[in-house]
Amino acid sequence: MILVHTPNPKEVAAYLDLFQAAMPEESFASLDQADLGQVRHLIAWGLPDGLIARLPKLRAVFALGAGVDKLLSRPDLPADLPLYRLLDSGMAAQMTEYIRYGVLGYQRNMDVYRRQQAAGQWRMLAPRLPGDIRVGILGLGEIGSAAAKALSKDGYQVSGWSRSPKHIHHVRSLHGDAGLEKLLENSDVLACVLPSTPQTQGLLNGERLSLMPPGSMLINAGRGDLLDQDALLALLNNGHIRCAQLDVFAQEPLPHGHPLWQHPSVAITPHIAAITLRQQAVEQITANLRKLAAGQEADGLVVKSQGY
Amino acid sequence: MILVHTPNPKEVAAYLDLFQAAMPEESFASLDQADLGQVRHLIAWGLPDGLIARLPKLRAVFALGAGVDKLLSRPDLPADLPLYRLLDSGMAAQMTEYIRYGVLGYQRNMDVYRRQQAAGQWRMLAPRLPGDIRVGILGLGEIGSAAAKALSKDGYQVSGWSRSPKHIHHVRSLHGDAGLEKLLENSDVLACVLPSTPQTQGLLNGERLSLMPPGSMLINAGRGDLLDQDALLALLNNGHIRCAQLDVFAQEPLPHGHPLWQHPSVAITPHIAAITLRQQAVEQITANLRKLAAGQEADGLVVKSQGY
Ligand SMILES: NC(=O)c1ccc[n+]([C@@H]2O[C@H](COP(=O)([O-])OP(=O)(O)OC[C@H]3O[C@@H](n4cnc5c(N)ncnc54)[C@H](OP(=O)(O)O)[C@@H]3O)[C@@H](O)[C@H]2O)c1
Ligand SMILES: NC(=O)c1ccc[n+]([C@@H]2O[C@H](COP(=O)([O-])OP(=O)(O)OC[C@H]3O[C@@H](n4cnc5c(N)ncnc54)[C@H](OP(=O)(O)O)[C@@H]3O)[C@@H](O)[C@H]2O)c1
Repeated sequence: MILVHTPNPKEVAAYLDLFQAAMPEESFASLDQADLGQVRHLIAWGLPDGLIARLPKLRAVFALGAGVDKLLSRPDLPADLPLYRLLDSGMAAQMTEYIRYGVLGYQRNMDVYRRQQAAGQWRMLAPRLPGDIRVGILGLGEIGSAAAKALSKDGYQVSGWSRSPKHIHHVRSLHGDAGLEKLLENSDVLACVLPSTPQTQGLLNGERLSLMPPGSMLINAGRGDLLDQDALLALLNNGHIRCAQLDVFAQEPLPHGHPLWQHPSVAITPHIAAITLRQQAVEQITANLRKLAAGQEADGLVVKSQGY
Repeated sequence: MILVHTPNPKEVAAYLDLFQAAMPEESFASLDQADLGQVRHLIAWGLPDGLIARLPKLRAVFALGAGVDKLLSRPDLPADLPLYRLLDSGMAAQMTEYIRYGVLGYQRNMDVYRRQQAAGQWRMLAPRLPGDIRVGILGLGEIGSAAAKALSKDGYQVSGWSRSPKHIHHVRSLHGDAGLEKLLENSDVLACVLPSTPQTQGLLNGERLSLMPPGSMLINAGRGDLLDQDALLALLNNGHIRCAQLDVFAQEPLPHGHPLWQHPSVAITPHIAAITLRQQAVEQITANLRKLAAGQEADGLVVKSQGY
């Protein structure tokens, strides 16, 4: 028996239909229908407290997303229970769009024109071409590397930062602390798509953000706890950072009255940069279930010691 | 002698340097330095009244832009004086970016998230993929056809409208009045890059805009007089049209206090969608001058009876 759970019952129902159709030989069930004692696999996004303890036969968990920080931070997740995450599943293309929208807006001064419009001001700015703009991408995994390739094809000067060196055509690969400093110092637009891990939490603090060139832009679509929001606000207010496009926040939903909401240089989206596409998720997870059944390795195994 | 004129003396100085460097054998001059009686070619954007009458040897005019409606509407422009316009010169790529920014923002609901942000509202909307969005492009000339190709490559469903039928891979070509109606009825985003001519002025009136699907978007980067701004405002206010991105206006600069300035669903840019890139303009015009000197036909001849 395979248990499918998300906090949204309608979404669970939709997933159950898709999983059952894709794998008629298996039986998929929601929390209220499943025989918990018989559950061997759990497909989930957002786990109720205490659930795992009630699944004695659980052999593996499949996350319905790319970032598994919330799942890994649960104290009740057994250290030896394999956890698989989604690879891409339509998220790389969406994230590329989200970052491209920010970069294109920055290149074409759309944020400045928006502020001018609010002031009723008609003033042409010097045009910039894609080749004039240096884009730095934090995280060159499934998602970041796809965005880096696409933006490089758009004509931007793209660099990226990851734990291990990468070889991506026309994308400068940086790593380590020195590489991070170099990336920050040379990014007109910095786009963060890192996972949240003990090593990356708080990475974008005031000191590091100050390394960005004057008049630069920050995009955060990784996780909210990577960024010191107060430090960002200070740098926006003193004009060092020109604008920001934020999809993820220290607390979500972003609390009422938080100064980011009304900041004229900040665009806020409600964690929608890259949404799991159900059909693709179902295909990937059922392919993984078949691999495990055949005694093969499944894709997307999270290395818990790394945190992603 | 070749006279170079724009309303901005600094720009004239920059152009003179570039032209002189590209064609040292010719002599280029500004209005205050030129021997007007000897001017055979005029390279211009914005003509002072009465200038043409003072150029007895004038043989051809080269516009420093793609749209020649202002030039053609001058009563003092002799009907038999050849007028050449710029073809592309970096404008097609810029216009593609401008339209792509609008389409991407519409697809990813960035306009809705901006309004939600203003209201402090955190609400996820269903994701849409490029293939879900029908883009209609009015004008499939140098600029419109480049934008159509690029957006089709981005994955959007692209149709275009022009006087003559076109054959562009993956782009549906429409023409005539019936074609226009079909395009309007099937465009989630309508992007206008038509020239202003007696046939196109006022084209986007209330009746035609009402044919667009509910919740659609209008981008106008052609000319301001193609669009009935009051009709657009009415359709924005009753919610039929979701949002607009406007670069050109009936009167430019858009007058102080005009209701478009403060409309929450309108993005206003000050006629910057596609700016002539000087170096490319100089290369194209000097190539044309050389062709004419060699007795060949030059590129970009405006068909005055057509108005573009
Ligand atoms: N906002 C949204 O809607 C949304 C949607 C999906 C995902 N996300 C976020 O995006 C993240 C990335 O997703 P993904 O599928 O691309 O993950 P991934 O394939 O695991 O890639 C993670 C990347 O981050 C790098 N990295 C991790 N820790 C690092 C460290 N300490 N120093 C330097 N680089 C480090 C990795 O380096 P190596 O390549 O060397 O391992 C890798 O390049 C997710 O974890 C999630 O937080 C957000
Ligand atoms: N906002 C800005 O910054 C900016 C910058 C540059 C240009 N523009 C505007 O963009 C316009 C287009 O530039 P372009 O270089 O692409 O011009 P173009 O090559 O002359 O193309 C004009 C297009 O409009 C079509 N067209 C003209 N009259 C029509 C009519 N009555 N019915 C249907 N279609 C008609 C033409 O059809 P055919 O192909 O059948 O001839 C052609 O496809 C310029 O005239 C200018 O107004 C704006």
